[in-house]
Amino acid sequence: MTAATTRLQGVFSPVLTPFNADYTPDADRFIRHCRWLLDQEVGLAIFGTNSEANSMSVAEKRKLLDALLEAGVDPARLMPGTGCCAISDSIELTRRAVQAGVGGCLMLPPFYYKGVSEEGLYRAFASVIDAVADERLRVYLYHIPPVSNTPITRGLVARLLKSYPGIVAGMKDSGGDWHYTKSFIEEFGPQGFGVYAGSESFLLADLRAGGPGCITATANVNPTAIVQLYKTWKQADADEQQKKLDTTRAAFAQFPLIAAMKAAIAWKTGRQDWLHVRPPLVELDAAQQKTLQASLDQVGFTMPNAGALA
Amino acid sequence: MTAATTRLQGVFSPVLTPFNADYTPDADRFIRHCRWLLDQEVGLAIFGTNSEANSMSVAEKRKLLDALLEAGVDPARLMPGTGCCAISDSIELTRRAVQAGVGGCLMLPPFYYKGVSEEGLYRAFASVIDAVADERLRVYLYHIPPVSNTPITRGLVARLLKSYPGIVAGMKDSGGDWHYTKSFIEEFGPQGFGVYAGSESFLLADLRAGGPGCITATANVNPTAIVQLYKTWKQADADEQQKKLDTTRAAFAQFPLIAAMKAAIAWKTGRQDWLHVRPPLVELDAAQQKTLQASLDQVGFTMPNAGALA
Repeated sequence: MTAATTRLQGVFSPVLTPFNADYTPDADRFIRHCRWLLDQEVGLAIFGTNSEANSMSVAEKRKLLDALLEAGVDPARLMPGTGCCAISDSIELTRRAVQAGVGGCLMLPPFYYKGVSEEGLYRAFASVIDAVADERLRVYLYHIPPVSNTPITRGLVARLLKSYPGIVAGMKDSGGDWHYTKSFIEEFGPQGFGVYAGSESFLLADLRAGGPGCITATANVNPTAIVQLYKTWKQADADEQQKKLDTTRAAFAQFPLIAAMKAAIAWKTGRQDWLHVRPPLVELDAAQQKTLQASLDQVGFTMPNAGALA
Repeated sequence: MTAATTRLQGVFSPVLTPFNADYTPDADRFIRHCRWLLDQEVGLAIFGTNSEANSMSVAEKRKLLDALLEAGVDPARLMPGTGCCAISDSIELTRRAVQAGVGGCLMLPPFYYKGVSEEGLYRAFASVIDAVADERLRVYLYHIPPVSNTPITRGLVARLLKSYPGIVAGMKDSGGDWHYTKSFIEEFGPQGFGVYAGSESFLLADLRAGGPGCITATANVNPTAIVQLYKTWKQADADEQQKKLDTTRAAFAQFPLIAAMKAAIAWKTGRQDWLHVRPPLVELDAAQQKTLQASLDQVGFTMPNAGALA
């Protein structure tokens, strides 16, 4: 098996983490949500930004990963977020994920210090890869400057690809600047480096430019239509499909996205505990929920087989 | 013992964390550095920004704290940083610190998500305080927007003080805007809320305005002169002393501060392992070390009894 054949592609979702009223993660609802996403052919980028992953300890994340594996979820469909501020945390979580057989690891750079050098970021990623020391590791670098304030630059990718060919497998670009995404596809795509769009807003553009797909929050709630575009992007109605995806996304994005997606699931499943988010995030209040529901009705939003999540 | 009598004051240092070449923390050097600081009458704000605290796991920090306690360091002189992105991590570290009898805990707000609401930050701090549930807890809120991007606002302090009088004891202002610091001293000082300057640059101003002192990185290397100003700020030469502190600080601040302070200690002790920083930070190279040494010689910089650190 060569590195190229193990590359992931398609639509992935940073899986929402369900919490109980006391803020503890609810593993049962998490498993059900993951299974529902897999049924919609969405891959599981658990422990992403929209999973509130950095609001959980490494131990809490390990426990959720173990619960998924024990439930029989195929680890090859997992792309857990394993990049933390502390390389010791990143090493622990990445090592566990690789041993479990995950398809890839999505790695944030350390994000506390600002204005760090390319050399420093190179060392951070290299330290984790060297410590894990496992040929099965596939690293996807996570570029999300609006949140991390720590961009993944072309110089950094070039250095890492040179040192760790096969291991450094791609990136997620959540910067919101398509020209930036495109430049990475053009420069590193020929080496098998997969540049995922950071939202479905750029899914069609990513596929047309030769990218592998997208890793997008709203796949948590709107998976069918997003996967449909992924499967049929060469058809004549692709631009029309993209427009429709954008409209649905905009209905969610009028509110903080994580709270809005959880509110939509609570609404469609009738389970109010889906509203919970961990501090520092705050759930939508009753008036916001009503506004969201009206907007979603207006764009014809539905959740297929939502009963499986209840 | 009333809350007021347990309030900390004076000069504190976010204690530099010595690392080995393999990036593991060096507990022996850490203990020696802490003892040296105590000998200079500097309090120990271990696990601060300049301690590279967020580059360490909770387990690594607990181990260093345990090592200090086992070495007989007075816990009352400790103000560990215990605020993490995950409230579960903050609870674990804060609980351990309080049980150890520390003088206070310096708490960063969760710093991954940006643009979070005052309500969300209130819940984050309240969740930790409620979970620790110990009357001995003294919380110092950590305002460092250039790094955390998550300011501590007057509205937040007012709410926390109302809910947790006695427990919420003060803040550190590392925003670099004296007018901001002063506004907190004026509004909350009368309730016993101690507003520390985030560097010695504002030490004299803080003391003159009725503040408790400063928590400053450069106390790691220039403790004597900083403590001298704290003790003699009512004397005629106070402004002169402040100017001299600023000059020394500027010599360090021409380089990234953490790497520069470690380079100075390596130089003065002859221990090259003091140079190590954890990724994503990078140590000063040989040329930078030379420039720094020349600048420090020029301002007459000395480290008293540096042999104790070797």
